[in-house]
Amino acid sequence: MIEIEENILAHNDHLAAHNREDFQRDGTLALNLVSSPGSGKTTLLVETAKALGGDIPITVIEGDQQTDLDADRIRETGALAVQVNTGKGCHLDADMVRRAMRTLEPDPGGVLFIENVGNLVCPAGFDLGEAAKVVILSVTEGADKPLKYPDMFRAARLMLINKSDLLPYVPFDVETCIEYARRVNPQIGVITVSALTGDGMDRWYGWIAAQRAERAALAATG
Amino acid sequence: MIEIEENILAHNDHLAAHNREDFQRDGTLALNLVSSPGSGKTTLLVETAKALGGDIPITVIEGDQQTDLDADRIRETGALAVQVNTGKGCHLDADMVRRAMRTLEPDPGGVLFIENVGNLVCPAGFDLGEAAKVVILSVTEGADKPLKYPDMFRAARLMLINKSDLLPYVPFDVETCIEYARRVNPQIGVITVSALTGDGMDRWYGWIAAQRAERAALAATG
Repeated sequence: MIEIEENILAHNDHLAAHNREDFQRDGTLALNLVSSPGSGKTTLLVETAKALGGDIPITVIEGDQQTDLDADRIRETGALAVQVNTGKGCHLDADMVRRAMRTLEPDPGGVLFIENVGNLVCPAGFDLGEAAKVVILSVTEGADKPLKYPDMFRAARLMLINKSDLLPYVPFDVETCIEYARRVNPQIGVITVSALTGDGMDRWYGWIAAQRAERAALAATG
Repeated sequence: MIEIEENILAHNDHLAAHNREDFQRDGTLALNLVSSPGSGKTTLLVETAKALGGDIPITVIEGDQQTDLDADRIRETGALAVQVNTGKGCHLDADMVRRAMRTLEPDPGGVLFIENVGNLVCPAGFDLGEAAKVVILSVTEGADKPLKYPDMFRAARLMLINKSDLLPYVPFDVETCIEYARRVNPQIGVITVSALTGDGMDRWYGWIAAQRAERAALAATG
């Protein structure tokens, strides 16, 4: 069993490396968005696509075990979107992303958001070729999640604390949550947002712009 | 022995968290530069300080077991610099950085380069409060170093392959080195430079600018 698992991971990592080369060649910033179910990922993506879509090509791969409701919501913003149903699978893998990109054929120089299956365990171990993982935690879920799911918070470059509009109504201490996240990943960036009210969203867009600038510096030929 | 080691690390991590808060408050981008001895870190820093120092405050903490020759070279560029001699220690720790910053009192909004002790093992485990670790590998050292020192290359956000001017004279395959680095850290960025000839240095400065933009997005109040 362990050997089979290692072979699966090695195969995935090989395809992820190819994805990464393609993203680099096309100047695409690929972000792997991970969270529990119900963290507000899709609403966040809809607002982000509306805000940035006028300036840069936005592409979304929606991972879900079933249904294609999320992709419909995204497409209404004008962004390219495809739904990938994983069936029994609890995470996207590099091959699913590869096939989705062949279907979508987005313009170069844009941002690809990969909305992973809602799950704080499985997606941590599967590289999709992304530049960075972004973990989204809503304030209704409790501040202890970084300690309970350390692999995921260790793997992420950014934690978005979402649904800040609900902070007055839930026992969620932002500082404690940040302290827990930094305990497992000292360098993790943190931005508190409400995709609903727009609060903090400009910082998220600024963070994306900085990642695009980093990709540009890394992609330029020496 | 294991318990003592854990206590030392916990104490270090606590001070590193305070450093990180201070850097965030002051809008300082702190980069922890790690490498083998002789990778060309100091020459790289001298050139970087010359190139960026006219626009932004540059501060350098030079870690060495002995001597303060490196800090003198840095100061000639106009940057603030202090030498920290670690004596028998094989790495800087968060307290040394904290005390150095109190001595230097740099202007806010700049870049702090922490040149760690030349060593690819010990510095990997000690958080200094930096935004990112940058590992510098010169082409004379061999392409296998990422596999031999995986902890360090896993901890780094960027690998600078330095001394590219020597590529015609050494058996160093850049693609193999990048493949090895990505095997331990798929998301690591890579820039090939020669601090001597200036080749690739603009990409390094572009990468630094992108990190500063990321810090700005993270530091802004919601």
